[in-house]
Amino acid sequence: MENDFIQIAKSAKQASLKVAGLASEIKNEALNKIAQAFEENKQEIFDANKLDLTQARSLVDSGEITQSTYNRLKLDENKMRDMIQGVKDIANLEDPIGKNLFVRKLDDGLTLYKVSCPIGVLGIIFEARPDVISQISSLAIKSSNAVILKGGKESKNTNKKILEIINNALSKVKEFPQNVIQQVFTREDVSEMLKCDEYINLIIPRGGNKLVKYIKDNTNIPVLGHASGICHIYVDESADINLASSVVVDAKTQYPSACNAVETLLIHKSFPKADELLASLQLEEIKLVSNPDRWDIEYGDKILSYKFVDNVEQAIEHINKYGSGHTDCIITKSLENAEKFMNKVDSSGVYMNVSTRFADGYRYGFGAEVGISTNKTHARGPVGLEGLTIYKYKLIGNGHIVADYVSGKKQFHHKDLTL
Amino acid sequence: MENDFIQIAKSAKQASLKVAGLASEIKNEALNKIAQAFEENKQEIFDANKLDLTQARSLVDSGEITQSTYNRLKLDENKMRDMIQGVKDIANLEDPIGKNLFVRKLDDGLTLYKVSCPIGVLGIIFEARPDVISQISSLAIKSSNAVILKGGKESKNTNKKILEIINNALSKVKEFPQNVIQQVFTREDVSEMLKCDEYINLIIPRGGNKLVKYIKDNTNIPVLGHASGICHIYVDESADINLASSVVVDAKTQYPSACNAVETLLIHKSFPKADELLASLQLEEIKLVSNPDRWDIEYGDKILSYKFVDNVEQAIEHINKYGSGHTDCIITKSLENAEKFMNKVDSSGVYMNVSTRFADGYRYGFGAEVGISTNKTHARGPVGLEGLTIYKYKLIGNGHIVADYVSGKKQFHHKDLTL
Repeated sequence: MENDFIQIAKSAKQASLKVAGLASEIKNEALNKIAQAFEENKQEIFDANKLDLTQARSLVDSGEITQSTYNRLKLDENKMRDMIQGVKDIANLEDPIGKNLFVRKLDDGLTLYKVSCPIGVLGIIFEARPDVISQISSLAIKSSNAVILKGGKESKNTNKKILEIINNALSKVKEFPQNVIQQVFTREDVSEMLKCDEYINLIIPRGGNKLVKYIKDNTNIPVLGHASGICHIYVDESADINLASSVVVDAKTQYPSACNAVETLLIHKSFPKADELLASLQLEEIKLVSNPDRWDIEYGDKILSYKFVDNVEQAIEHINKYGSGHTDCIITKSLENAEKFMNKVDSSGVYMNVSTRFADGYRYGFGAEVGISTNKTHARGPVGLEGLTIYKYKLIGNGHIVADYVSGKKQFHHKDLTL
Repeated sequence: MENDFIQIAKSAKQASLKVAGLASEIKNEALNKIAQAFEENKQEIFDANKLDLTQARSLVDSGEITQSTYNRLKLDENKMRDMIQGVKDIANLEDPIGKNLFVRKLDDGLTLYKVSCPIGVLGIIFEARPDVISQISSLAIKSSNAVILKGGKESKNTNKKILEIINNALSKVKEFPQNVIQQVFTREDVSEMLKCDEYINLIIPRGGNKLVKYIKDNTNIPVLGHASGICHIYVDESADINLASSVVVDAKTQYPSACNAVETLLIHKSFPKADELLASLQLEEIKLVSNPDRWDIEYGDKILSYKFVDNVEQAIEHINKYGSGHTDCIITKSLENAEKFMNKVDSSGVYMNVSTRFADGYRYGFGAEVGISTNKTHARGPVGLEGLTIYKYKLIGNGHIVADYVSGKKQFHHKDLTL
């Protein structure tokens, strides 16, 4: 007998086929209805969140979860306002579906269209932040994908309530299909999800290193995400000391637990202001570690490993060996060294003279962020709505057959038409 | 102790970092040197191929391999000419690496470049066709990827000789790094390759259904390919009988063993010329099967399953249920039905009034074909050189820090610059 998860996955697949062709107006109406429903029912969400917080408090007391997990779990008026605004913002973005990526005339009367379309069914596995449900559901609706969500058990009541409000709102939108947004709750569901490559097309984990690594190691479904963010700044011989200090301080202290915060500082051995630079970092209460146990460590705190290197090549080698392919920066006045660094460092973001903290979908101008990917296929770096799309080819002709081109009776033209 | 495969994979990773930044001229020189070396040493390749053919002949006689495998294994003057021309053609294509996909001004003096770059290390697993080595090696060089090839054991001598000639040619190109093209030979190597997600970024299987399915089921490395090609043609009520007959005949008989050949014909129950259509197919020696054991069958031969459906919706449902997401076509005079069909059929190719046999990289104008993908991420449909690329973000500034944007001291502009 089929288990419950397969039933959910099948219905998600069915829903994905229906939502794929939905008009932009309907999707945007759905999103605005959700935002309105959050506004009208926010007290219910706060009440559900209080239930979770009460249970979480005793878990903090017994040491089973950290205070920062508790903080992420807690929804307050500010987070609620951001959550509601987030849904409205996504409604206002351009529809990523149905765009002509190219139009090519293959021959007289034979035209090929490359058109963006949804991926299908997304599996989302996330930890304590209940606002992820709202964000991912909105992104899925906008990009015409169906989604199966699995949140952390600490936020179960909040997650249930948010999804109930979302699906109530969606049920009032004529033409909006059922089962586009579904939720599961158990560890067994996660195991089933990871095996379910027949119905699930992409897994997006949102959470810590361990969660992402576990998922990547246990599924053959494509996974979009990053396990760790071990970002580097290399201060070249010619660097400006003030610029270097300011950028490193921002990259380490502006939000130390972010994945795009810097973890390792590499300094050219002949950089004349090295002592001044290190002193300026200590003034900002950054703890400097010159001989860490490991170079591939993500502190997530105001701690910074550092070492001296002989030249830009050695910096590049270090980064390609110990980095996580996330975001790495060179501070230099040498365009030649910057070019070498940016071409040879194999990371999704390669920066010159700016803070690694810019690695973010909003800062890149994507309007929304699905997550940050260190993958080498599909989507890399900060991922916007486009990362939830793929394309199909539409070929329209009038009885064209391949035999005519093989025989030489006809020839292909292959002329791109302007969009 | 590390096994041999890991050593090969590590050296491929190292090579991929070196080949990533290679100038177009060097890559093209390498390709032209390979083409020239094939020309000069083709007798050696034929001799090696004869060794394989002698062994293969007895395997055909004992029934261990089929005659068609033997035919694919055999290199003759025609195949050699095509192989050499293929390398030259790839040299003449535009370089897919280092292209600006967008340039965006984030703020004064802060510019973001999205730039195409190679994926890294490709693992290629292929069956009896030894010309695949030449094709994939050329595509890898052009797209600045390193590659590890595993061919079928039947073509071992031919594969070894071709790779020896390739690597001899590459060794004469100044600046071209070592270990860009490597080969492995055993089943154990395949097992290791499928586990080697630390060093291998993409697996491309080139071969039959079983091979591809085995690979997809046994790795968490992204796989680019298709396990099967169950293509459909739906003949709508308003179809032109001559057009329908001509397109179905082409799609079934022009090359019946191709993955883009049609396998199932769906006919609207009110199509007035159904008998005439079926009779015309039988005249072309197509065997019609009205009640197949399974609807998801790929005959690879002049056999065609068919059934009558009530309407276009039922055709769409059948295709989404039994199809393989490869290429499906509607024959109709109704633009409305065509639009519905092309939007709702979830396949990489959705066609109107043309043969499914057009699903091919050369016919689409890509200049070269990596393979055909039924994936829902990265690359779908016929895949050209672009499918062997990803992108990185280069961000160039002058001491920009995120704190200034969070505090409101500065605002993002997000203005796309024309390329």
